[in-house]
Amino acid sequence: MKNTQLYISENKERFVNELIDLLKIPSISADKAYAKEVVKTAEQVSQSLKNAGADAVEICETAGYPIVYAHKLIDPKLPTVLVYGHYDVQPADPIELWTNPPFEPIIKKTEIHPEGAIFARGACDDKGQMFMHVKAFEAMMSSNELPCNVKFMIEGEEEVGSENLGLFVKNNKEKLSADVILVSDTGMLANDVPSITTGLRGLSYVEVEVTGPNRDLHSGLYGGCVANPINILNKMIASLHDEKNQITIPNFYDDVVELTKEERAEMAKAPFSIEAYCKALDIESVYGEESYSTMERGSIRPTLDVNGIWGGYTGEGAKTVIASKAYAKISMRLVPNQDPHRITELFKNHFESIAPKGTRVKVTPHHGGEPAVTPIDSIGYKAASKAYEQAFGKKPIPVRSGGSIPIVAMFEKELGLKTVLMGFGLDSDAIHSPNEHYGLFNYYKGIETIPYFYHHFTEMSK
Amino acid sequence: MKNTQLYISENKERFVNELIDLLKIPSISADKAYAKEVVKTAEQVSQSLKNAGADAVEICETAGYPIVYAHKLIDPKLPTVLVYGHYDVQPADPIELWTNPPFEPIIKKTEIHPEGAIFARGACDDKGQMFMHVKAFEAMMSSNELPCNVKFMIEGEEEVGSENLGLFVKNNKEKLSADVILVSDTGMLANDVPSITTGLRGLSYVEVEVTGPNRDLHSGLYGGCVANPINILNKMIASLHDEKNQITIPNFYDDVVELTKEERAEMAKAPFSIEAYCKALDIESVYGEESYSTMERGSIRPTLDVNGIWGGYTGEGAKTVIASKAYAKISMRLVPNQDPHRITELFKNHFESIAPKGTRVKVTPHHGGEPAVTPIDSIGYKAASKAYEQAFGKKPIPVRSGGSIPIVAMFEKELGLKTVLMGFGLDSDAIHSPNEHYGLFNYYKGIETIPYFYHHFTEMSK
Repeated sequence: MKNTQLYISENKERFVNELIDLLKIPSISADKAYAKEVVKTAEQVSQSLKNAGADAVEICETAGYPIVYAHKLIDPKLPTVLVYGHYDVQPADPIELWTNPPFEPIIKKTEIHPEGAIFARGACDDKGQMFMHVKAFEAMMSSNELPCNVKFMIEGEEEVGSENLGLFVKNNKEKLSADVILVSDTGMLANDVPSITTGLRGLSYVEVEVTGPNRDLHSGLYGGCVANPINILNKMIASLHDEKNQITIPNFYDDVVELTKEERAEMAKAPFSIEAYCKALDIESVYGEESYSTMERGSIRPTLDVNGIWGGYTGEGAKTVIASKAYAKISMRLVPNQDPHRITELFKNHFESIAPKGTRVKVTPHHGGEPAVTPIDSIGYKAASKAYEQAFGKKPIPVRSGGSIPIVAMFEKELGLKTVLMGFGLDSDAIHSPNEHYGLFNYYKGIETIPYFYHHFTEMSK
Repeated sequence: MKNTQLYISENKERFVNELIDLLKIPSISADKAYAKEVVKTAEQVSQSLKNAGADAVEICETAGYPIVYAHKLIDPKLPTVLVYGHYDVQPADPIELWTNPPFEPIIKKTEIHPEGAIFARGACDDKGQMFMHVKAFEAMMSSNELPCNVKFMIEGEEEVGSENLGLFVKNNKEKLSADVILVSDTGMLANDVPSITTGLRGLSYVEVEVTGPNRDLHSGLYGGCVANPINILNKMIASLHDEKNQITIPNFYDDVVELTKEERAEMAKAPFSIEAYCKALDIESVYGEESYSTMERGSIRPTLDVNGIWGGYTGEGAKTVIASKAYAKISMRLVPNQDPHRITELFKNHFESIAPKGTRVKVTPHHGGEPAVTPIDSIGYKAASKAYEQAFGKKPIPVRSGGSIPIVAMFEKELGLKTVLMGFGLDSDAIHSPNEHYGLFNYYKGIETIPYFYHHFTEMSK
């Protein structure tokens, strides 16, 4: 891969400029006002794959935004890498908190990124990380060093739940057949602490509505006499955790895979400063389930969080009203082997059962996702580990992440393939938030690491 | 009072039409857009007092909306009745739930009011009830049967907390000197069950803010690791009631005057159908403090209700966010002898003390009001009781109400006078709600009852 790495080092500046061009298109999939821009982004991605040397570049229509497909098949006897990524981005709200416009990329130095970072919506999630794969592929092609077959599947609906990807995968199993899936849509611990995500939490998300009296009431005349839906909702939600901060929904933990002492000891080796963590969030102390560390609480343990709550009078000043209804959005992060459908059902049954007389409860499920764990003894993981070691000069740490990428479980189910999560982002990159950015170091290191993975994966598959 | 009653029966139709004219002016004190209309209403009220035969009619300026003053002093040796009322009204929101425009009064028959009711904002609260006093005064004047002195004090800021009334009263003690204060701004049990309000609850109203991390966080990455301000707020609020639905704030009940067995037995005699109550609110069951009846819970017991709550994502669909802040508006209804300032202080100290590490809590007091109890052995109460008996053919029941009229305690403090709460509204009149109305029966009965009160109060004061 010498020539490939040489090509990369010689084209670094152009690689950044091409990414900047891609970041200028506001491909916000959640907002229909940007529909044309989303499609335009798909076209630009497909063009970049063509330019890099891919064959069969195709913009595959779906019921929503298109999926860009491309491949380079050099020998059916060689292994095939399937690269997944997404070209859509999160909305930029709250726009007023951006120090530079979200779709006018700018390179600025930060404490964590002394060599500069690109600030723009999608810089890290996922245009920047997805584009590393296009550029790494281009480098291998240009250097005549592509060691195996490669397929690309780049979607435009990841930020709105990948609603049409499942059907596409189901209908194109042959086309997508491969030996491993490679995704760069996660992070690593720090620029000097490379890590590979080996687990993702699943998700169950519900909306609840508590109804008391049939209309808003005067709290003087009715206060104390009827179940106040907000008080009741508060009480019901509070009861979902016990004094150890464990979740009280019956059978909730039934399918949770507990880690062994050895596995937890291994996890605890990852560098983590509780002081720095609290300082960054301006909190006096962390908070969570008894007997687990903060890293464990955020990765190997399921959680229940209220994501939104509303009811009654929320304007200026005081209004003495008892609301007829109160609402909340509640999400549960799940770990292997919790099934999101079963958990949603358990939540619904339990929540309905604890509603006191005088109230009615409605539970509406939103989207969910299954947890996933990547084995660290697979060829894919081992190849990735070697690739990181080669690029960073350090063996990467396997880390289980708290977030959810529901497609990982879907890929395994539909294609029978394990995914390697080769993410190069940092927690501080502010993905989904104002001032999202991606370090130039991380972008380059990603482009350098990927060809090593191709090499090792091909070698180890022999 | 024969001629007075004759005059009333002969002028019923005109009395309704004059009220309708008054109801057409949208005197919404909470909304500055209606400032001119509020002032115009004051002028119309003062004109109606002049027409009725009052002397010294005056529109007294305050820092806010004016107070209409008038009197008729016939003999310094005779007792003086001070009538209080208000000419401002609540906002009409939500306007779309009104079946007729709120400021285009219309008379419609209802199940409870087979002889018709006037539908308009302010019909009952308080234009209709206040205007009964003007018309009763007119009837006594026209019939030459006014038996004592009378003073009127009609304000325009009751719905926004009577902010300038206190200073006015303080500065005009001589002018307002009287023997009893008469207020019609409450209700009675039913048209065939006359009652007189003898107690009002006080009020302590606070807004709370719980802050967790310094910014909104991704619930996948941080869920389970930090105190989620919404979950914490829910837990803190839930902990404010114990399993008996008593309030857990230390020393909260210290000053509560417990009623004797006899007093409670007397209260229990008031007709009350729990079935009809639940049916009207479309609830399966009532809910409240153990060992107390619904009527007791709503009148002689203090309560704590959340009036509004908000935080996190409240839009369409799902967003996996941990909010940085969560908010609630919480009010406590107080009973004698709870002091609203002390209760607010107790709440604040307690609420701050239960905030877990990793969160910060801010408690901001809104307006409050003191509870009040009217003695039933006073001349005022006895005269009112006789008046009701004469007008309704039934002795009225003394009832303690759950609402708050903070000015009652203020009048007692500043003027040393007890108030008689001669209210003729019904709970079903939908005051503060869409489709507020006031029964014609109640309006006429009020006008008939008031002169009897003047008569008995004068006789009994001899």
